[in-house]
Amino acid sequence: MKLQTAIDRVSLEDAVAMAKALNGKMDILEMGTSLIKDYGNLAIEQIRQVLTETELLVDLKTIDEGAYEFRQGYLHGGDILTVMGAASYDTLKACYEVSQEKGKTMMIDLLEVDENKIEQILDFDEAIFCLHHSIDRKDTLDATGSVAAFHQRFPQVKRIAIAGGIDLQQAKELAAQGLTEIVIVGSKITKSSEPAKTVEMFMEAIHQ
Amino acid sequence: MKLQTAIDRVSLEDAVAMAKALNGKMDILEMGTSLIKDYGNLAIEQIRQVLTETELLVDLKTIDEGAYEFRQGYLHGGDILTVMGAASYDTLKACYEVSQEKGKTMMIDLLEVDENKIEQILDFDEAIFCLHHSIDRKDTLDATGSVAAFHQRFPQVKRIAIAGGIDLQQAKELAAQGLTEIVIVGSKITKSSEPAKTVEMFMEAIHQ
Repeated sequence: MKLQTAIDRVSLEDAVAMAKALNGKMDILEMGTSLIKDYGNLAIEQIRQVLTETELLVDLKTIDEGAYEFRQGYLHGGDILTVMGAASYDTLKACYEVSQEKGKTMMIDLLEVDENKIEQILDFDEAIFCLHHSIDRKDTLDATGSVAAFHQRFPQVKRIAIAGGIDLQQAKELAAQGLTEIVIVGSKITKSSEPAKTVEMFMEAIHQ
Repeated sequence: MKLQTAIDRVSLEDAVAMAKALNGKMDILEMGTSLIKDYGNLAIEQIRQVLTETELLVDLKTIDEGAYEFRQGYLHGGDILTVMGAASYDTLKACYEVSQEKGKTMMIDLLEVDENKIEQILDFDEAIFCLHHSIDRKDTLDATGSVAAFHQRFPQVKRIAIAGGIDLQQAKELAAQGLTEIVIVGSKITKSSEPAKTVEMFMEAIHQ
């Protein structure tokens, strides 16, 4: 299982410093949506420049204009880009085609997407399907339970990621369960007093 | 009925020049999602600065982190901000609360949202509900038909907008129908050879 760490709601200067400090320490660094919306796609290049040993996911959360947004995201240095499962099938298809053409990866964010919609978007074989619990929701996430239920319902999905308030204990349980390709941890790492140490702790925990 | 013109997929320099040329010529100027994602929220200020006589809608397409994104959007100069109807209820509520607190307006983008979901988000009284046909979809939009059907199904929604490939004829028909508060026209104006003249033509057509 890979560890993805999300940087969000900080200044670009702080984001670049954090990317530098975390470079090589985990599998994937996520440049959060807030950084894109605050600073724009051009800022991807500043993160990319210091991130020499870790994959870069840009959380574009594309929901329309799929080809345009994905071309921009890859052009400026993203390895993995996100599109909303809530987008139209045609938008998802446009994103997928750009990702395949560029030899890059598409992640489908399943935030607020129901099973009927998921059934309609299962033919993106190489896409990563991300179970995502909104940061604005007041209820909490049963991580392993959600992954198990998803896998049982959609066994044809090969690549699963999960995000939404995941802590160390949940990350360990997900690793033990063996169904998740990427666990995404945001504030539990980046808002900790020493992110570089916390990320090591998570990496050790999930690779036991 | 108000006319909203959307600027998308151009350089920031061209967007500012176009905003300057269109200032005061129509009711609302939309800074499209592509401009936000390419240049960031800071770019709102550059548009705001030249837009002294027209309202500014920023098409944030928020789908998570509602309060953060809306605070940023209003802070940098937006009058109206968009949130996806596909977002969680809690995200929509967070956006609505910020818009009410700031005395500003929230538009709910109904892209790919079904009737069940709309039923759950009807209690945002002052919000504008925007019927939106994805730019990536291959089928076309029956504008007046869509508005009539929506109004019949959800008569309690006071404020309706519509977007998605609207042309001059459709805009006229929407004006005559009298149910739409805002008609949103993108490329038919901004990609025309003389946007300032085309916008005048639309304004005349819908105010006959």
